[in-house]
Amino acid sequence: MLSWVDGLPCDFLSLRDRGLAYGDGLFETVAVRQGRPLLLDRHMARLAEGCSRLSMPLDGSLIRAELQAFALELGEGVAKLIVTRGDGLRGYAPPQPTLPRRILQGSPWPAYPPASAELGVELFPCRTRLAEQPLLAGLKHLNRLEQVLARAEWQGGEYAEGLMRDVSGRVIEGVFSNLFLVKSSQLLTADLSRCGVAGVMRAEILTLAAGNGLAVKVRDIAYDEFLGADEVFLCNSLYGIWPVRRFDGHDWPVGPLTRKLQALVHHLQDS
Amino acid sequence: MLSWVDGLPCDFLSLRDRGLAYGDGLFETVAVRQGRPLLLDRHMARLAEGCSRLSMPLDGSLIRAELQAFALELGEGVAKLIVTRGDGLRGYAPPQPTLPRRILQGSPWPAYPPASAELGVELFPCRTRLAEQPLLAGLKHLNRLEQVLARAEWQGGEYAEGLMRDVSGRVIEGVFSNLFLVKSSQLLTADLSRCGVAGVMRAEILTLAAGNGLAVKVRDIAYDEFLGADEVFLCNSLYGIWPVRRFDGHDWPVGPLTRKLQALVHHLQDS
Repeated sequence: MLSWVDGLPCDFLSLRDRGLAYGDGLFETVAVRQGRPLLLDRHMARLAEGCSRLSMPLDGSLIRAELQAFALELGEGVAKLIVTRGDGLRGYAPPQPTLPRRILQGSPWPAYPPASAELGVELFPCRTRLAEQPLLAGLKHLNRLEQVLARAEWQGGEYAEGLMRDVSGRVIEGVFSNLFLVKSSQLLTADLSRCGVAGVMRAEILTLAAGNGLAVKVRDIAYDEFLGADEVFLCNSLYGIWPVRRFDGHDWPVGPLTRKLQALVHHLQDS
Repeated sequence: MLSWVDGLPCDFLSLRDRGLAYGDGLFETVAVRQGRPLLLDRHMARLAEGCSRLSMPLDGSLIRAELQAFALELGEGVAKLIVTRGDGLRGYAPPQPTLPRRILQGSPWPAYPPASAELGVELFPCRTRLAEQPLLAGLKHLNRLEQVLARAEWQGGEYAEGLMRDVSGRVIEGVFSNLFLVKSSQLLTADLSRCGVAGVMRAEILTLAAGNGLAVKVRDIAYDEFLGADEVFLCNSLYGIWPVRRFDGHDWPVGPLTRKLQALVHHLQDS
């Protein structure tokens, strides 16, 4: 598959890269349709926020231009962008000066079953809990062992995603998705100031909801509140929105707000 | 510098390696003296424990033989061993089958000032706290952003190390060291079942202490208990033991138990 390192075709990496040594970097998983990176502004905004919080220099206009050129060459599929703190010597201290490295990897569009968006999915109850680390919460950084452990908890196609709670038991997100509830016509998604990844589709849905007169709250979600929701759905930047139909013996209908937001997001995905 | 990938000289890595993508792997930092990897059994034991907890296959005898051959070629210095879950496609699910990748990187012996071991060091009070994640606690895995953030908190040579506490305020370790206290002639080091890295030198000191009739406890350490200690010292597999002389306005003498353990460890480092 197509891959670039620092703007040039390349499929290998220096062994001294701090992305390998420490997971010292960030990534974005970008949907590419008809040669265009979707939700580009939101991806760039999250990357900028991550770089700022990790004190990594960012050349935003260079990365944006590279992502656009890469998407043009890829055509259809997924562009994964990784930005690391570049090469380092031994030791945790950030190199001075830091020369971040840009990695772009293309892959085909994932073969999601159409039934997931149409009929909804079943969620696996992950035992792996998310640790609470406010300094890293919300970022799409390269320290993802919790997701690796959680995703390894189930095999086969019965479960499309898994539910992750934090160590205190709050409902946070899916392994590779964010989660929304609807209760009494109000949209609700977890506060991600202690853990979790603040997805670009989650941000898009929050904006779309507000722009379409839907009441929406971002706050802590207790487990019982999740189980008692009227509607539950997942989202990410690739598949859009999947209704959640079943979780650990609990069933939900595919509700009207989920369908409304799917329509809004579908329009966006095709644009 | 000398570097091998899967047993062959190589200084680059596949972009598809899950060590880069997710920090999905483990590492060991091994002191090499006169062509021999020191504390090899302890490094191999920790690696085996890590592989078991991350459900990664491990060919222990192959890695041990490679480390020995690498050390022979390196002569003097540091051998960093990284074992990743190997290449993967997009997504967190571990590849089936998993073909772990072995990376060995050599570097010169670090230029630690002799005064650190002789006179003791000053500890920086890191604001970065360690999140509590029992599933990963104790392992030397590749998700090290907390250490990167903590180490970036100070520059210059005044502080040789930084103190890391967990999100609940307990005293855990240094950024790249473990920590011991002495109180009323009893040796004490933090329980690492929620966070922290269980260092091989820490394990060695626990064994040496027990074998030399020293009372030793592994349990939670409150901040006040740390401040009220009679002696404080740091340890890791490269520098051995550094007395802690000063932290945030508190001073400690270099005590007799610290000196006794330094002598025991020094013997080991030279052997």
